Amino acid sequence: MEHDFDNTISLLARTPATLDALLRDLPDAWTLQNEGESTWSAFDVVGHLINGERTDWMPRVKMIIDFGEARAFTPFDRWVQQRESQGKSLAHLLDEFARLRSENLRELRAMKLRPEDSQRRGRHPSLGVVTLSQLLATWAAHDLTHLHQISRVMAHQYREAVGPWKQYLGVLQCAGHSLP
Amino acid sequence: MEHDFDNTISLLARTPATLDALLRDLPDAWTLQNEGESTWSAFDVVGHLINGERTDWMPRVKMIIDFGEARAFTPFDRWVQQRESQGKSLAHLLDEFARLRSENLRELRAMKLRPEDSQRRGRHPSLGVVTLSQLLATWAAHDLTHLHQISRVMAHQYREAVGPWKQYLGVLQCAGHSLP
Repeated sequence: MEHDFDNTISLLARTPATLDALLRDLPDAWTLQNEGESTWSAFDVVGHLINGERTDWMPRVKMIIDFGEARAFTPFDRWVQQRESQGKSLAHLLDEFARLRSENLRELRAMKLRPEDSQRRGRHPSLGVVTLSQLLATWAAHDLTHLHQISRVMAHQYREAVGPWKQYLGVLQCAGHSLP
Repeated sequence: MEHDFDNTISLLARTPATLDALLRDLPDAWTLQNEGESTWSAFDVVGHLINGERTDWMPRVKMIIDFGEARAFTPFDRWVQQRESQGKSLAHLLDEFARLRSENLRELRAMKLRPEDSQRRGRHPSLGVVTLSQLLATWAAHDLTHLHQISRVMAHQYREAVGPWKQYLGVLQCAGHSLP
């Protein structure tokens, strides 16, 4: 489908509750384990999503509106959550993510973007020219890529436990496709 | 990790609420679209999970307890939901899945399985001898494989809309790994 503003908002609005239902009070054996060195646990992913709400998505929306292609976006630090999540509980991170997402969507709606704004252009530091529409679609797809990752990281913990069923479970064949 | 009965139950208990938070009232553009011919939409996946609750997981647990290796499990029909979901709304399917899962977990807990039961053996029609522990671990991993699939099928709808960001989104590189 084409990018649709309302469909994007519908998805973005649901991610905090989805992760909450899946992860809150789940045993640490599921949420704190990763797939090996330099990979992320579900806990790490929630920290990364929080960082995205703070430094990536809405700041880039505003840069497109304010500066167009004249200024490149600030590159996104994909490892900052290692430091920022330290000492916090997963419950705390889930609350923080829900609060930030809700504030960001309120701000996005308040901008009252018009259909013609979707083709406004900005500059990505390595991808070059991108549109507002592509940025918003990516925000939604980025939620899905991390839901995809969390389901894979958690399934990995039962890789041996499932015995011969391993061959039938697609998630156990998933190579990750991106780092991490 | 080794299979752990309580960890498995914790995960199984959360899946209905997770899918509910993600999918209920989400626009059809996300939930009814698939990845092409002979693939499933999120709606189809929920129907498949319902069918698993009815005909796969608990019936197989009981077959292991009652017959051990003497009788092979009934093969699981992976396409029956096409017929059974017809005419139903996604909201109806989500309710039905939640009800069946809750009943099944109540029944499983009431069986008061002991640690030594985990090594009881049954016979899978194509995989051969499997243990109760492997069956329960697979039930949980099967939830995750379908959460993985749903996130991929939904992301696929924005494959073009994300423009040049496509290369950064792992979920868009995912080949599915199993049919469907």
